[in-house]
Amino acid sequence: MANPTLLILAGDGIGPEVMEQVTRIIDWFGAKRDLAFDVEHDLVGGSAYDKHGTPLHDDTMAKALEADAVLLGAVGGPKYDDLDFSVKPERGLLRLRKEMDLFSNLRPAQCFDALADFSSLKKDLIAGLDIMIVRELTSGVYFGEPRGIFEEGNERVGINTQRYTESEIDRVARSAFELARRRGNKVCSMEKANVMESGILWREVVQKVHDTDYPDVELSHMYADNGAMQLVRAPKQFDVILTDNLFGDILSDCAAMLTGSLGMLPSASLGAPNADGRPKALYEPVHGSAPDITGQGKANPIACILSFAMALRYSFDQGNEATRLEQAIEKVLADGARTADLMGEEGGTPISTSEMGDVILAAL
Amino acid sequence: MANPTLLILAGDGIGPEVMEQVTRIIDWFGAKRDLAFDVEHDLVGGSAYDKHGTPLHDDTMAKALEADAVLLGAVGGPKYDDLDFSVKPERGLLRLRKEMDLFSNLRPAQCFDALADFSSLKKDLIAGLDIMIVRELTSGVYFGEPRGIFEEGNERVGINTQRYTESEIDRVARSAFELARRRGNKVCSMEKANVMESGILWREVVQKVHDTDYPDVELSHMYADNGAMQLVRAPKQFDVILTDNLFGDILSDCAAMLTGSLGMLPSASLGAPNADGRPKALYEPVHGSAPDITGQGKANPIACILSFAMALRYSFDQGNEATRLEQAIEKVLADGARTADLMGEEGGTPISTSEMGDVILAAL
Ligand SMILES: CC(C)[C@H](C(=O)O)[C@@H](O)C(=O)O
Ligand SMILES: CC(C)[C@H](C(=O)O)[C@@H](O)C(=O)O
Repeated sequence: MANPTLLILAGDGIGPEVMEQVTRIIDWFGAKRDLAFDVEHDLVGGSAYDKHGTPLHDDTMAKALEADAVLLGAVGGPKYDDLDFSVKPERGLLRLRKEMDLFSNLRPAQCFDALADFSSLKKDLIAGLDIMIVRELTSGVYFGEPRGIFEEGNERVGINTQRYTESEIDRVARSAFELARRRGNKVCSMEKANVMESGILWREVVQKVHDTDYPDVELSHMYADNGAMQLVRAPKQFDVILTDNLFGDILSDCAAMLTGSLGMLPSASLGAPNADGRPKALYEPVHGSAPDITGQGKANPIACILSFAMALRYSFDQGNEATRLEQAIEKVLADGARTADLMGEEGGTPISTSEMGDVILAAL
Repeated sequence: MANPTLLILAGDGIGPEVMEQVTRIIDWFGAKRDLAFDVEHDLVGGSAYDKHGTPLHDDTMAKALEADAVLLGAVGGPKYDDLDFSVKPERGLLRLRKEMDLFSNLRPAQCFDALADFSSLKKDLIAGLDIMIVRELTSGVYFGEPRGIFEEGNERVGINTQRYTESEIDRVARSAFELARRRGNKVCSMEKANVMESGILWREVVQKVHDTDYPDVELSHMYADNGAMQLVRAPKQFDVILTDNLFGDILSDCAAMLTGSLGMLPSASLGAPNADGRPKALYEPVHGSAPDITGQGKANPIACILSFAMALRYSFDQGNEATRLEQAIEKVLADGARTADLMGEEGGTPISTSEMGDVILAAL
């Protein structure tokens, strides 16, 4: 049987540095666990723009659609801030999400025991936190038409459209309920049904999917503004949070920051399953391209490595191997390995990006 | 000269209880500080619906447009959850905002020294916090057309429209810069210009207003998702935050909860100044109607009383009297007066809503 294929899009900023460590981990699984991947590399974001004048070349898009999974580093940087909207680095990422139809974005907000002190929250509120945010990723105000800046009378008006169809809500709701069954069996769905009709439809469809096919899962609804409050007040009340593209963008970043260690958080963006049961999938760290530390060997590669662990679990049905990798990471953290972003008040000497790769490989 | 007029809309849930204490404070200013108001009371929200079948009667709307300032308690409650969208309690509030053209919503997120322990954040991150969020309140996705739930093919689609004109952005930006000049002289504007064209226009207009008329104020721009992160990570980096209606809804709730004492936070919603220089204005606490404690005399009246202090400052040019009231509140807190929501781990016996009114009056 042919090896499964991975397309690596390291992207901009610290993307290439952290991805280098992921590549070492991938090689280890090939050599030691009989889990070889055929890996291809390509460009996305600013680096693709520099070469091709577009943040995602059509050939790269085609490869992404072919690959069994895509691993992405990060996109963007100050160099590209003044580019036209249509060729900004982010457009490359948004095109991948849309054309791969990656409607279900899983963003764990998890607090690692060894790192609970990094949270800006008091320790007892955050220790043991384990939330999964399921964010709709291919619709809503990110993609709705009409959109643009138009003339109106003698001034301009900026317009975007929030749009959700029943089937778009249905499918992402199912993915949240499925996930909840394998976790704490609780889903909290967030919208602004008190203000937005799209939120009314959202709430109604989520409730219907629940009542019809997942009555065993505990479902609640919350307004998104209250959701932001509750995340800050008592985050451990949540198991799975289901929400739309824009609310998900903000709430998942809020939740991620609760843990205090953004350099630790992976994400998975999943589409519909293929014939072989494997969903179209893209994995990426939650952190950005961190231009301020790019090229200094300071970046924490763990979020990107954990994204590969999610790939093992969700794309390749290798939950045990994913756990092996996750436990190796927990072990090195417990042993005190810290990149610069993980230096607490006690001080100490941070290790480099590649040294973090070394100790994780050693722990494996 | 005739007394200035106040329209009090106590609303639902704990609204009437907390407003009762505000009325006592208003009377005190009339008797002791020669600052008498002509006060009228009317209904809004569920209580208006119960009586008139609408959450805001046209007569009440007319009175609100006439009054020199409106004080609102809170709207909503489980009893009204299943009402049709068009008559939900919130629609009363939204109509007031829209027809009074209250485009600038000021939401302070302030941490009271005596209450710093209530925050879920570590004390050093939160002590002394003093942010002012300026939220656009009469446009954006809250009011944009088209909106609704429509048939499309053989399913339904929920649609809302985010819309901002240049002049709408211009005027709220000005109010943020004006405010910043009287505070820390810093504005951070938040949108999603990397994803939404309305955000691009927002950023452009804010920058232009700044460069043209407020070059002395320090201006920065931040994506709203990063804004949520930064609020959690290091809230004291902010002075004035300027943002749109929907982002403002979520970010201001997030910021409010950072303080840990929602029962303390007032808000002002301001329109354009009249001929007499007084803006159309509505003042309300940030907290909601709290149906779970309604009628038990447990509610904290301070947020509502501080909303009246904001009225003194922004509608009646009585900054000194506002400060007098704010200092009385700081004093009773420092002296240990605590309603149930302010009971910490040390325990103790909470005082009632009216007892909190008593001690504040005594401190005045
Ligand atoms: C980079 C940007 C387009 C993106 C988004 O807004 O979705 C990012 O913030 C994210 O959350 O993945
Ligand atoms: C009650 C509701 C309509 C309102 C809003 O969404 O604006 C509230 O959340 C607020 O922030 O004042």
